[in-house]
Amino acid sequence: MSRWEPNARGRLEQAALDLYQERGFEQTMVTEIAERAGLTERTFFRYFADKREVLFGGQDMLRNIYVSAIEAAPASTTPLDAVAAALQAVVPVFQERHKLVRQRQAVITANPGLQERELLKGALLTSAMTEALRRRGVTDPAASLAAEVGVIAFKTAYNRWVSGPDEQDLSRLIRESLDQLKDVVAGT
Amino acid sequence: MSRWEPNARGRLEQAALDLYQERGFEQTMVTEIAERAGLTERTFFRYFADKREVLFGGQDMLRNIYVSAIEAAPASTTPLDAVAAALQAVVPVFQERHKLVRQRQAVITANPGLQERELLKGALLTSAMTEALRRRGVTDPAASLAAEVGVIAFKTAYNRWVSGPDEQDLSRLIRESLDQLKDVVAGT
Repeated sequence: MSRWEPNARGRLEQAALDLYQERGFEQTMVTEIAERAGLTERTFFRYFADKREVLFGGQDMLRNIYVSAIEAAPASTTPLDAVAAALQAVVPVFQERHKLVRQRQAVITANPGLQERELLKGALLTSAMTEALRRRGVTDPAASLAAEVGVIAFKTAYNRWVSGPDEQDLSRLIRESLDQLKDVVAGT
Repeated sequence: MSRWEPNARGRLEQAALDLYQERGFEQTMVTEIAERAGLTERTFFRYFADKREVLFGGQDMLRNIYVSAIEAAPASTTPLDAVAAALQAVVPVFQERHKLVRQRQAVITANPGLQERELLKGALLTSAMTEALRRRGVTDPAASLAAEVGVIAFKTAYNRWVSGPDEQDLSRLIRESLDQLKDVVAGT
């Protein structure tokens, strides 16, 4: 039971997403996920607290990447540019997993309860960026406004990326969204 | 039972908010709300589907005000200015009910489940504004970006207003937030 299983986490995640899409999130049981992955239920619970956690377990990693990138930005960087650097820093996490991210998005879109949780995830990540900006000496409301505006640009780019073909460049889409956002705010 | 009760809706709302604050949202029963208001449970259910609806029943009214204001904006108005007009249009709804709005906010802050619902409400209102802009011929992503950016400015102003003294002018706070947002995006 406790022997090492190669890539257990990845196999469980893929099995879970496949089942959530085939049968529905509510109808899938942890025991079925483990069975599909060729692993035990006990192994599942070593990686995930519950079946919802498969979808939202990446939240802490994303927060750490965002916060580190904002801390690493040169002191002269504007708040919005520091946030833009943070958004670019998470691109590899998404870019390498286009199929999985797309599957995850389809599951969330199909379940209103998961949509509320996804909104909460977005709000928590925005708060983490706001806090990181405050620690750089950015005052309110500029700190929260820069974080919120950045998240909007990211969401806009992400929605295009997740619904488009595999070869789309998320990094370029984020830059485009930020430019479009600047145009909208400038009223051009 | 079915006789007319003066301001039944308002009395039920006030009784519910008082009880949610005193005992907690989860611990309050509809029968207690009705009793506190001096009305029957049956009257409660004539106005609200459940005790959560007391907190979120205003969503449709807000959506209608937002959408009407965007539709009424002159054709030459920029997308963000049309959204700004919509935000100003709902000010009277909030301004006249500062104490109730503040009580409602305290209840939501104390309950994570209600916070998720509040985020969903924000997302639905943002979508309604995006749709209204599209019907004016605004293309994507400008339509959603203008709506999202406007909602951020509103939330920033609202958070200051709801936590501040009664005499604060929400309308002025919204204008200030929009100006601060423009500064943040322009990188000044």
